[in-house]
Amino acid sequence: MPLTLPSEFVTALRTLLPVDVVFLGNEDRVRYGHDETEDLSYPPDVVVRPRTAVEVATVVKLCAQHSVPITPIGGRTGLSGGALCVQGGVGLALDRMDRIVLIDEQNLQVIVEPGVITQTLMDAAAAKGLFYACDPSSKGSCTLGGNIAENAGGPRAVKYGVTRDWVLNLEVVLPSGDVIWTGANTLKNSTGYDLTRLMVGSEGTLGIITKAVLRLIPLPKETRLMLVPFASAAKACEAVSAVFRAGITPSAMEFMERDAIVWTMRFTEGLPAQVSAEPGAYLLIEVDGNHTDVLMRDCETILGVLEAHECGEVLFAETTAEKDALWKLRRSVPVSVKAHSVYKEEDTVVPRFELPRLLAGVKAIGEAYGFSTVCYGHAGDGNLHVNIIKGELSDEFWEHTLPKAIREIFQLTVSLGGTLSGEHGIGLVQRAYMDIAFSPVQLNLMRALKSAFDPQGIMNPGKVLPQ
Amino acid sequence: MPLTLPSEFVTALRTLLPVDVVFLGNEDRVRYGHDETEDLSYPPDVVVRPRTAVEVATVVKLCAQHSVPITPIGGRTGLSGGALCVQGGVGLALDRMDRIVLIDEQNLQVIVEPGVITQTLMDAAAAKGLFYACDPSSKGSCTLGGNIAENAGGPRAVKYGVTRDWVLNLEVVLPSGDVIWTGANTLKNSTGYDLTRLMVGSEGTLGIITKAVLRLIPLPKETRLMLVPFASAAKACEAVSAVFRAGITPSAMEFMERDAIVWTMRFTEGLPAQVSAEPGAYLLIEVDGNHTDVLMRDCETILGVLEAHECGEVLFAETTAEKDALWKLRRSVPVSVKAHSVYKEEDTVVPRFELPRLLAGVKAIGEAYGFSTVCYGHAGDGNLHVNIIKGELSDEFWEHTLPKAIREIFQLTVSLGGTLSGEHGIGLVQRAYMDIAFSPVQLNLMRALKSAFDPQGIMNPGKVLPQ
Repeated sequence: MPLTLPSEFVTALRTLLPVDVVFLGNEDRVRYGHDETEDLSYPPDVVVRPRTAVEVATVVKLCAQHSVPITPIGGRTGLSGGALCVQGGVGLALDRMDRIVLIDEQNLQVIVEPGVITQTLMDAAAAKGLFYACDPSSKGSCTLGGNIAENAGGPRAVKYGVTRDWVLNLEVVLPSGDVIWTGANTLKNSTGYDLTRLMVGSEGTLGIITKAVLRLIPLPKETRLMLVPFASAAKACEAVSAVFRAGITPSAMEFMERDAIVWTMRFTEGLPAQVSAEPGAYLLIEVDGNHTDVLMRDCETILGVLEAHECGEVLFAETTAEKDALWKLRRSVPVSVKAHSVYKEEDTVVPRFELPRLLAGVKAIGEAYGFSTVCYGHAGDGNLHVNIIKGELSDEFWEHTLPKAIREIFQLTVSLGGTLSGEHGIGLVQRAYMDIAFSPVQLNLMRALKSAFDPQGIMNPGKVLPQ
Repeated sequence: MPLTLPSEFVTALRTLLPVDVVFLGNEDRVRYGHDETEDLSYPPDVVVRPRTAVEVATVVKLCAQHSVPITPIGGRTGLSGGALCVQGGVGLALDRMDRIVLIDEQNLQVIVEPGVITQTLMDAAAAKGLFYACDPSSKGSCTLGGNIAENAGGPRAVKYGVTRDWVLNLEVVLPSGDVIWTGANTLKNSTGYDLTRLMVGSEGTLGIITKAVLRLIPLPKETRLMLVPFASAAKACEAVSAVFRAGITPSAMEFMERDAIVWTMRFTEGLPAQVSAEPGAYLLIEVDGNHTDVLMRDCETILGVLEAHECGEVLFAETTAEKDALWKLRRSVPVSVKAHSVYKEEDTVVPRFELPRLLAGVKAIGEAYGFSTVCYGHAGDGNLHVNIIKGELSDEFWEHTLPKAIREIFQLTVSLGGTLSGEHGIGLVQRAYMDIAFSPVQLNLMRALKSAFDPQGIMNPGKVLPQ
C-alpha cells in the first residue's frame, strides 16, 4: 500500500513523537483498518498509538497544519464503520491509553482513559461494590472511548440508560489541537451549552476523547433471569409494554425471534436443554435489586403479565452457570449469524409499543425483495437489530437492490416515530440514509455544528453526515 | 416607555398575527419584563402571546428579517434572568401554549406544549398511575418549556435525574424561523448529533421550544420522609455521601443550615412542633418505592448511617399532612429569605463529598467580606444554594464589592471540581463569571455553536456567554 501523506508531515510526526508511537508498516495499517462492520477495510496511511493526551494533541495539531485526515480508533468493535479511515490519513488508536485513573468512592465517580475495556471498568467497580451499568454486547473487547463516541447501549439500558447517561465530563482534544474539559465533575450542570452530551454520540467527528469522568452507583446485590417462549413474535412484543405498565422496570428485556434461536443453536454449544427452536420468539427478562423477596415479587408480577399474553413455560435460571448460558445464547446471535453468511445489520429503534409493527413490516419488506432477516434486540427500548442475510443472493442484488429495501425499512422505522440507529451510530454505512430521518434544515444545522468544531473537516471525515 | 421597534416591523406583526396575540401596552410589557431573579426589570418592546408553533415561526421570521431581538418567556420563575428582555424587542410568552397533547400510556411518553405548568403534568400523569419526576421548587408555577430551557432540577433529581434526562424529542423554532424536531420519540438514539440535549439548558438562546416529548415512568406507590437534625452542617454533609455508599439512593436528600430554618420559622406558620432552630443543620431525606417493607428496611439502613454520623432525634412524617408540612418547610426557605431582605442567590454545585468544604469556604468568604449567607439545597447532588443577604449592607458594597466575593465563591466551587450553576442556569446574572469555569477556547467554541444556530444573534441576546 503506497503512502499518500506529505513527506514533511511524516518527518514531523517522527520527530515530535517517540519512535514506538508511529507505525507505517502494512501489517499495522491493515490491522487498524477494520472494525466489526461487515467485511470493510479502510487502512490509515499511518497508525499512531499515543500514550498521553499531550501526544494526541501533538498529532492533531500536525494534522491541522497539514490538512491530514485523522480518525480516532477504539476497540474496533463498531458496527457502523465509525472508526474506519475512509480517507486514509492518520489512524489514531487509543488502545494504549487504558488506565483507570481513579475510582472515587466518596463521590461515586471514576476517571478513565478512553482505551479502557468496558468489562475491565465493570470488574474494577464491582470489586469496590460499585456498578457501571452500560453493557454493550461487545463489552469484553470494546472500549469506553468508543462507547462514548457511539453512545453505546446494551441490554441494561432499559433500566439504567445508555452511555450518555453515565458521562459527567470529558477531556477532549479538539480538531485545533486545543485540549478542553467539556463540563464539570458534577451530577447536575446548567452552565453553558452541554458540550459533554454533544460529544457523546458524535462518533469521533468533533474531537478525540482523552479522558472521561463517569458516574457509578452501588452494585445491585442480586439478579433473576428468565427465558420466556411465545407462540409468535407479535405476542412477545405485546407483552413487553405490558410489563412496564405493570410498574416493573426490568434490568433487561431482550427479544429474539425464532430464526435468531435457530442460528444460535446451530453454531453454539452448551445451551440449556429446554431451549428449542419451536417457539415463535423468546423474551429474556432480567430483574435486579438488593432484596430477594422483592425480586421474587417482581418476578411474580411479570409472570402474571406474561401469562396474560399467552407465554409458554418460563425457564428460570437457577444458578450463575445457567444465567451465563442464557446470556451467552443472547450474546451469540450476531456471532452465529456472522459465522454463517455475509450480512448487514440495521439498528432500528422505535417507541417500545411499535415494535410488533416494525417487525412485521421488516418481514414484509424482506418477502417483497426476496431476502431473509434474523431479528433480535433490546425490546424494552424498542431497539430491533435487523440482520439481513446475504446467503445465496447475488452481489448485484446486494449492492444495488438491497439499499432500496433498507431505505424502506428505515422509512417504516421513522414513520413509526423511530429513527435509524438506537446504539450503533451512523458512521459510514448508514449516512446515505440520514435524509430519511432528517430534513435539509436539520442536516445543515448539524453541518454547521461540525464546522464550529472542525472548520477544516479533518476529524474523522466521511462519517455521520451525508455528502 | 417608548417603543424602539421599527414601525414597519410592528405593522407587519399586527398584519400577520391575530389581533389578540400582540400586546404593546405598558402594563403587559412590565408584567412580562421580570422573573424571580432579584428585583430586575427588563420589559420587552412588545409582548407576543402565540397559540401555535406556526404563529411562533411567523414572529421569529419577522424578527430575523428586521434583526429584532426575541426572548422566549415561560413561567417567569427563573433565578438567573434567562427570560429577561435585556435588549427589548419581542418578549415571546408561551403561556397560551399550555396543552398536554397526548399521554401515551403504551409507550410511557407524553407530548406537551411548552406552557404547561410542571405540576399540571405531574398531576395528569399521576391520574394515570404515571410519574414525571422533575420537581423544581417552583413546580406550581414554572412551565415545562422553561424547565427544559434551564435544565431545571429539584429535590428528586438525586434519584431521577434532571429535566435533561426526561426529554426525548423537541419541536423547536430555529432563529431562522424554520421548525424542526431535534430527534426521535425513542428511548435510545445514536443518529447524528444530539440536538435534543444541546437545546436542553441552552436558555432560549438557540431556538424556541414549541413542543416536547417527555418520558414517563410508573408512579412509585409510597414515600417515607424524615427530618434529621445534626449538631453541625459539616456533620450533616458528611452523612450524605455515607448514605449513598450504603447502597441507598433516596428520592430526595435536602440540606438546610440553621439559618435557613431560623428564617423559615420566622416567616412560616404551621410547622411541626419538633422543628427548632437549635440544631446546626437539617437533612430532609425521602425514599420512595412500591413495597412498604422495603421502604422500612431502607429507612433502617439510612438511620444506621445517620446515627454513625451523630445525628439528633429523627422526625418521621407519619401522615400526608406532616409530609406536606416538612416539604413546605424546605420549599419556603427562598420565599422567607426574599420576604425579608434583598438577596442574591448563587447555585453552586460540586461533587457530593466536597459539599462540607464548599459550605465552610462560603462562610469564610462571607466573614472576610462582612456579609451573611443562608445556605440550603440538594445535598445529594452537591448542589448548594447560597443566598447572600443584603440586610444593612450599602448599595455601594452590594454593587461594587460583592461581585469580587462572588468570584471567590465560584473560584472555590470550580477548584473543588464543581461549576457555577447546577440547575438555575447562567442567564443574565452569572454570565460575568463564566470565565471562571471556562477558558477562552471553551467560550469561543460555545460562541461558534451559538452562531451555527443564530448567526444574526437575535435569539435571547445578552445571555449565557460573556461579552
